[in-house]
Parts: sequence; C-alpha cells; structure tokens
Amino acid sequence: MATSAWAQDLHVKALAFDVFGTVVDWRSSIIREATELGRKKEITVDWAAFADAWRDGYGPAMQRVRSGELGWRTIDELHRMILDGLLGEFGIEGLSEAEVDHLNRAWHRLDPWPDSVEGLQRLKRRYIVASLSNGNVALLVNMAKHGGLPWDAVLSSELARQYKPDREVYLKAAELLGLSPSAVMMVAAHKGDLRAASRAGLRTAFVPRPRERPNRDIDLSPESAFDINARDFLDLADQLGA
Amino acid sequence: MATSAWAQDLHVKALAFDVFGTVVDWRSSIIREATELGRKKEITVDWAAFADAWRDGYGPAMQRVRSGELGWRTIDELHRMILDGLLGEFGIEGLSEAEVDHLNRAWHRLDPWPDSVEGLQRLKRRYIVASLSNGNVALLVNMAKHGGLPWDAVLSSELARQYKPDREVYLKAAELLGLSPSAVMMVAAHKGDLRAASRAGLRTAFVPRPRERPNRDIDLSPESAFDINARDFLDLADQLGA
Repeated sequence: MATSAWAQDLHVKALAFDVFGTVVDWRSSIIREATELGRKKEITVDWAAFADAWRDGYGPAMQRVRSGELGWRTIDELHRMILDGLLGEFGIEGLSEAEVDHLNRAWHRLDPWPDSVEGLQRLKRRYIVASLSNGNVALLVNMAKHGGLPWDAVLSSELARQYKPDREVYLKAAELLGLSPSAVMMVAAHKGDLRAASRAGLRTAFVPRPRERPNRDIDLSPESAFDINARDFLDLADQLGA
Repeated sequence: MATSAWAQDLHVKALAFDVFGTVVDWRSSIIREATELGRKKEITVDWAAFADAWRDGYGPAMQRVRSGELGWRTIDELHRMILDGLLGEFGIEGLSEAEVDHLNRAWHRLDPWPDSVEGLQRLKRRYIVASLSNGNVALLVNMAKHGGLPWDAVLSSELARQYKPDREVYLKAAELLGLSPSAVMMVAAHKGDLRAASRAGLRTAFVPRPRERPNRDIDLSPESAFDINARDFLDLADQLGA
C-alpha cells in the first residue's frame, strides 16, 4: 500500500481494462476449445499454431477497417472472416455451420487469468471498473458471464465504431463515463495500447502477462513512462489502495 | 414457478430494464436530497412539488431532442436545463454552481425499490440483465454503484443517440447484445415504453410501481398484450423460472 497516497494524487475515478491478454488468457482457452472440437471430429491439427494464426490475423483485419478499406464490422465478424480462411489453410473439413459458429464464439468463453477476478473485485470497491476492448459488447458481456468478471460497465470500441489504438476509442470511454480523460486509467499488457491511451490524455497502468504468448518475444519490462507498473491485478490493487 | 415452462418457450436471453420508476424510486430520492439541501441552506419550498415539476419537465425536454429542435444531449444536460428553470420558478436562491451541480446529480443517487436488487440478482443467474434507460451511461453506472444494481451491461439511449420510445433505441440494445429483438424482453412500469418495445419486436414484461407517483392517476392494470405481468421483480423472477 506504499504508493496509495501517490495514487490518490492521480485523481483516477475509473479503470478501463484491455481484455484479450490482459484480463483473459485467450491462447490457452482457444487451444483448449479447438483441441476438444478436433478430438470430437477426429481432426488432427497443431491447435497451438492454429490459435496463434487466428490471433495473428486480427491486427491486419482490424487495420483493414481502420484504414477504411472495409466498412465497420465487429470483432465477431472479423474473427469469422479470419477463421474461414484458416479452415482452408489448416485443411480443417467436415464442420457444420453451427460448429464453425460455435468455434468462432470460443472468444466469448475465454478464461480469466488466475488473479483477474479477485483483482477486479478489489478494484471495484474503490473505482469504476470497465472493459475497454476491441471485442464487441455481446462478446464482452458473454465473456463476463462465463468468467465472472464484475464490470461496472462494458465499454467497447464498438461504441465508437473505431478500433484501438484510434484516439477516439479512449475519448469515447471517458465521455461515456462522464469523466475527463485524466480521471481514467487504461490498464493493459500491451505497451502500444497504453501509449495511445496516454496520448489521448488517460493515465496508464502496465500489467505484463508473460504467459500470454510464451512462444513470442514480447517486451515485458516496466517503463517509467507509465503511471503504474504492476505485476498482476492484485499488485495493481495494492498500488491503487484498493 | 407455474409459468416457467411457458417462459422458456419465449426463448428470452436478455432482460432490458427501464430504470427511472421501474428499478429506482426517483421521487422519494429527489425529495429527500432536495429537502436536505433546503434544510442546509435554509430554503423553504414544497420539495415534493419541486420533484414532480423536475420530472414533468423531462418528457417535453426529450421531445425537443426527439423532434430535432435541440441537437443530441444527455439526460444530465436536460436535467440541468430543467433545473435551471425551476430554481427561478421556485425562488430558490443562494446556491453555488457546485451545489446546483450536486443537486443535478441527485439523479445518479436514486435508491432502488426494495425488491429491485434481490430480483435482479436472481434474474442475473439465468438471463443477461441490462439497463435500457434514457439516462446516460455515466448516470446509470454511478447509480448502479450507489444502489448495488448488478447489471451485466449498462445500455442507454445514449448509445443510439436517440431517446425511448424511438424504435432505434430498442433495436440498438438487441444489436449490442448480439441477439434478435425477440430474444430480449423489455421490463418497465410504463406501458408506452413496453408498447414501443413490442412494436420493435421485443418481448415485454409489465411491473407496475404504484408508489412511483402516488399523487397521479397512472394506469397500473395488467394487460394480456404484454408477455408477462408481474407484481414486482421477485414475482418476475418466479414467472421467468429464475
């Protein structure tokens, strides 16, 4: 609790959380669901490579929306667009439309990191805790039911009809909460998200998630440019006096 | 639980709640806050008449937005516009800007009806429970913190930038939840809200709140046109098998 007096000086009223990777372990969850489906359908595929490829398609697909090449569509729709391509690439055959749709909605059923729910519950006592994800509202609401995420508000890029890291997404979140950007702290495991939030005037908390992509070389080092660097959500609660 | 098999036939996945009057007792809460302020500032006013006048200004103010006479503005802004007029009408003087702003935000601190929190908690186990109010998101988030309302999603007319009973508000709620309109049930104490929801394709549950405006003659009778007529949220949970 050493820094709680300092945290009070920040005048932060709300915490806005990145979700995929920061709150939930998308990779293990997708591998698990895909593996189960493969077993049931007797399909043998490197499901870890499949999960990584699915996630790797996400940035470029969003970029096509951000650039205006594609009109607005939700992450559910982008996930499905990528998935349809991957089924061919990985030679996955014999799935019904209902099975493909169910697999696509595996992103609605991602499991939280072990500290996420307890950390959010503690933080919620003192702050407004909101998602601020590129995931669409329906995905985030279903995920919260699945994992017990106690959001005060489910905020999404969908409400700005633009994707992070576009500035408007961060400003829209503050506007909807009735707060100045500096009263909102973005919490994320990804530095690019935090840097964009900071440029929009939000406070920032970096929570590295080394298990998000154990097979990739991700920058997990703390940086003094962020208002807070925390080991996990429990440490974040400690540092924010919650 | 007699009707729960029938309720299952409805295929309802989410309940969308009107808030002012349906979930919270705005009138007692506003009278209480205004009376406290009056005592502190030594202002004598008929605060019940003041609360009624404030609420009575709300429909016409929204109508000016709905008709396009005024551009989009939030309920916080409309409440303030009405309040500024009422301060003159009721001869209320000597309030600082901070005091007027605090009074305006009394709408963020409305108390739930006695059955609201328990009923929502029960319904939340089986359904997505969302607000669907003309109140803005910030107002609804603050009210939920104040009263312990366990929303899965805070949905508001603000997200459609139109006010109920405009059709788009109901359709936007279903769209954001990723559901067809018929999988969403509007819950309200006001028949006009339910009729508009029904025209947009939503299911409807009428929960009369005889104490909302005890001094007005409001139509509280059940109607077979609604899918459900319930005495309160506990009866609603019974009828919906939750």
